[in-house]
Amino acid sequence: QESEEKFAKLLEDYLPQHTVTRELLKTEIDNLPLYGYGIKAFMLSMIETTLRVSEGTSTAVDIETILNIGKEMLQKPVVKLEGVDSVLEALSDKYRLVLATKGDLLDQERKLSKSGLEGFFHHIEIMSEKKDDDFKKLLKHLDIQPHEFAMVGNSLKSDIIPVLNIGGYGYHVPYHVNWELDTVKHKVEHDNLQQVDKISEVLQYL
Amino acid sequence: QESEEKFAKLLEDYLPQHTVTRELLKTEIDNLPLYGYGIKAFMLSMIETTLRVSEGTSTAVDIETILNIGKEMLQKPVVKLEGVDSVLEALSDKYRLVLATKGDLLDQERKLSKSGLEGFFHHIEIMSEKKDDDFKKLLKHLDIQPHEFAMVGNSLKSDIIPVLNIGGYGYHVPYHVNWELDTVKHKVEHDNLQQVDKISEVLQYL
Repeated sequence: QESEEKFAKLLEDYLPQHTVTRELLKTEIDNLPLYGYGIKAFMLSMIETTLRVSEGTSTAVDIETILNIGKEMLQKPVVKLEGVDSVLEALSDKYRLVLATKGDLLDQERKLSKSGLEGFFHHIEIMSEKKDDDFKKLLKHLDIQPHEFAMVGNSLKSDIIPVLNIGGYGYHVPYHVNWELDTVKHKVEHDNLQQVDKISEVLQYL
Repeated sequence: QESEEKFAKLLEDYLPQHTVTRELLKTEIDNLPLYGYGIKAFMLSMIETTLRVSEGTSTAVDIETILNIGKEMLQKPVVKLEGVDSVLEALSDKYRLVLATKGDLLDQERKLSKSGLEGFFHHIEIMSEKKDDDFKKLLKHLDIQPHEFAMVGNSLKSDIIPVLNIGGYGYHVPYHVNWELDTVKHKVEHDNLQQVDKISEVLQYL
């Protein structure tokens, strides 16, 4: 979100900031089938949006600024949620933990490694999408049944609903910032869904 | 290689084509720790190279051309090596087949799906690097020992040598084009290495 704001500011000579943000989202949606998720896709979509909204009058400095915004994102310090270490430590005694995520593999590996949480996870699973079928593939790959699988995540749309759909369990830990494309507006209720306020609460259930 | 040639041609007003190619390779090497492998990284490195060699005088049209070169790569038809279907069919009876690759997950999935070879593979393993330790992680993840693992690939540096180093088997199928960063100049000999001329020959050994 910070990077998006920097980008909107960069282009405010061409368009009002909120229009830039809308144009960027449009480019991201168009490019999703080709680029998938992650920071590199985001960088390429910022560049494409710049060319379009400036109608070809953008400068090399604009493009360089965008490359730098992206490179900064790729080097950001990792800030962990409160309590995440002790939760993972407790869970890793009883469960096989897998980090399931969209995005660029190297970037996700970097974050995991910087977080110091690497040792708790069996491996990182990078998913090109997080729809029902993608979780089915993940279960096949992990060689387990849906009722043996629980997902803890902040996105109802990507982490929770598809897992409930295929017969698994979901623990939703909301976060105050969510990518617009990863948001559902309706209320979700399900027997296998547990809402928690912070990640440490999952220990009451698992 | 075709895309690299298009790119070098695009910038020949600024620099001779072979110098452009060298500058691009330099950018790619610099960005590898941040971007990793794949077409999106390649696109970002082409853009960065353009800004540098044009000393800020490149035009929006240049950048747009680069985005189009990349998008074209991401939509290229998939051409299979001769005999690959029957080889995979024969092997999939006896072995668990995994596609181990660097690059962008979505792009590799797309290629596999377009190839019609998807059914032969247990899953795709995207590796951020293909060094000894990365193959060790892969074996841990697959829950097998090195002597149970054979790699078939075109790059001695990335597919074969690290696998030999950790005690696995390598079948090297050379391809007439190789990325400069994925090339070794010296001759490799090893008890567990088999050189073959085309992929169908691996059936003589496996």
